Amino acid sequence: MADAATADRADLGGPSLAEIRAAAARIQPHLVETPVLRSAALDTATGARLAFKCEALQRAGSFKARGAFNAVLSLTDAEASCGVATHSSGNHGAALAAAAQARGVSAHVVTPETAPDAKRALIDSFGAQLTVCGPGMAAREAACAALLERTGATFIHPYDDPRVIAGQASCALELMAQAPDLDAAIAPIGGGGLIAGTCLALADRPDVEVFAAEPVAADDAHRSLVAGRRITPETPPETVADALKATLSERTFRIAQAHLTEIVTVEDREILAALRMIWRELKVLIEPSCAAPLAAILKRRERFAGRHIGVILTGGNLDLSAMPRWLGESAHERCEREQGAPGGRL
Amino acid sequence: MADAATADRADLGGPSLAEIRAAAARIQPHLVETPVLRSAALDTATGARLAFKCEALQRAGSFKARGAFNAVLSLTDAEASCGVATHSSGNHGAALAAAAQARGVSAHVVTPETAPDAKRALIDSFGAQLTVCGPGMAAREAACAALLERTGATFIHPYDDPRVIAGQASCALELMAQAPDLDAAIAPIGGGGLIAGTCLALADRPDVEVFAAEPVAADDAHRSLVAGRRITPETPPETVADALKATLSERTFRIAQAHLTEIVTVEDREILAALRMIWRELKVLIEPSCAAPLAAILKRRERFAGRHIGVILTGGNLDLSAMPRWLGESAHERCEREQGAPGGRL
Repeated sequence: MADAATADRADLGGPSLAEIRAAAARIQPHLVETPVLRSAALDTATGARLAFKCEALQRAGSFKARGAFNAVLSLTDAEASCGVATHSSGNHGAALAAAAQARGVSAHVVTPETAPDAKRALIDSFGAQLTVCGPGMAAREAACAALLERTGATFIHPYDDPRVIAGQASCALELMAQAPDLDAAIAPIGGGGLIAGTCLALADRPDVEVFAAEPVAADDAHRSLVAGRRITPETPPETVADALKATLSERTFRIAQAHLTEIVTVEDREILAALRMIWRELKVLIEPSCAAPLAAILKRRERFAGRHIGVILTGGNLDLSAMPRWLGESAHERCEREQGAPGGRL
Repeated sequence: MADAATADRADLGGPSLAEIRAAAARIQPHLVETPVLRSAALDTATGARLAFKCEALQRAGSFKARGAFNAVLSLTDAEASCGVATHSSGNHGAALAAAAQARGVSAHVVTPETAPDAKRALIDSFGAQLTVCGPGMAAREAACAALLERTGATFIHPYDDPRVIAGQASCALELMAQAPDLDAAIAPIGGGGLIAGTCLALADRPDVEVFAAEPVAADDAHRSLVAGRRITPETPPETVADALKATLSERTFRIAQAHLTEIVTVEDREILAALRMIWRELKVLIEPSCAAPLAAILKRRERFAGRHIGVILTGGNLDLSAMPRWLGESAHERCEREQGAPGGRL
């Protein structure tokens, strides 16, 4: 994890700050300037000052709209006319479908059978063609290759693409404009597109440290940074944070290695406890993956207390029907008890 | 329902527009300028353009902070020093407790035993003294009278108070600044403080009609307007919209009678269907009462289609443990099915 000031961004394969600013301007008319929310209760619980950037309220329900719109709007008319395609655990697929719909071109999305129903329904709602594949990156990539061969569409990778990273980076630019005196930012890490973008957007702000949070059950990014080389899991990870199962690319690995201060890993039960806190205190219906950063801040209190931290709440595309099992024992018991109660079931 | 232009506001016992503007300025440093959110999916579902004013993201979790802060900040130091007291189904109590804490004075809150646990816990978290009473307005008022006798605190009624109404009115002023070309506004009606404030804030905007939504099971406001006189229920109402069980005062009745276009009544199942739509599409964790306006817009499509409507999402203080029963049959079944599944319960 080298000093950010000495790293040559061009060598890392990421977008420049100028490209990031151009992306922010390109997508701005199409997207939501998501609010920054604060909570006295969560500040007390963590001992930090937290500025929650609510990307769950973004178009198509996650920050992924930023990268997808930037990529689709960057295409030439000739490229766009053959449509776009991707593989995605859900949010990038929905975002790409929304961006393609906005430009009036077709979208093809390969999504694993393990993706939540709500995400598949959302992709479908934007008029995209859905292809379901088995779990794991290899299955995704194979299904996508076959699809590209058939359609001639332009492939927009969910994170290993400078245009996508530049779009995701716009979130940190917006956050810094809304809360200029942050001294840290934290986001979940899956494939690393958001973290890479956040690092590069803050490359001229050495006073702001960037952290990532990752599920223990899908900790390839953490293990990769520790080992100093990219490690990919042998079997598809199992975690409640469905959006964080992807693995770093060489590009996002190099950017994270050069700029990231630390990756904090958190257990699924810690993610769910943080999820319930955010639902209760912020009233924003984020999906489990987005709770990893608060879980990390709670777990490593000594690391984060006293700081002013931007926390990116990445998305809110969850299956409402899965909520009861994330609410813990007491909700389950109440759910059972009230089943037979008059008026209790509506 | 007379022409707003001919009604004399002073006669109705409500605040003037100047008092409303003063309230907005007084409370502004203490409160959140809540965002206005939009959803293409909900616009499609209703055929209208909807601007959701997210008061669930307000301090203390509901619009009630507006009226409570205005009332508490309006007290003289001598008045404030003896503390403040109220009765409340929860949100006004929490708001008053937060306002008293901000001013450094004590708060006493009488709340019915039927109020959600989360609301009692929230009131408690702001350091207020809690007294629990039986259901119904009579029980609330009796318990509160005893408490005032004992403490000498200043009573701040949850809605029958011009200072409180002026505070609630600031929400509509803020909404109109954020979405200037609305042609209608809709909010839930319980005791009528928010509706009265909304009507009075929009008194100089005859181009904006004000609607209210009310649960069929607690439809005293609707019946009162139809009868032309205030009707109070004989037994405490039973509805999932716990925040809407209060009944109009003479003051809020007169203001509603003079200014309100219509009260639309909705069944609890319609409220819960709208609740799930808002959770899914807006990702804002509102409480059931707040879904009544969307339920009304969906129910009376012919009345609202084609219009640009401000929808006040009033609050988000819900018991997470009650969520499973609001999610409907499929969530219940899934909750049961997954109980025994490995990894399904976390």
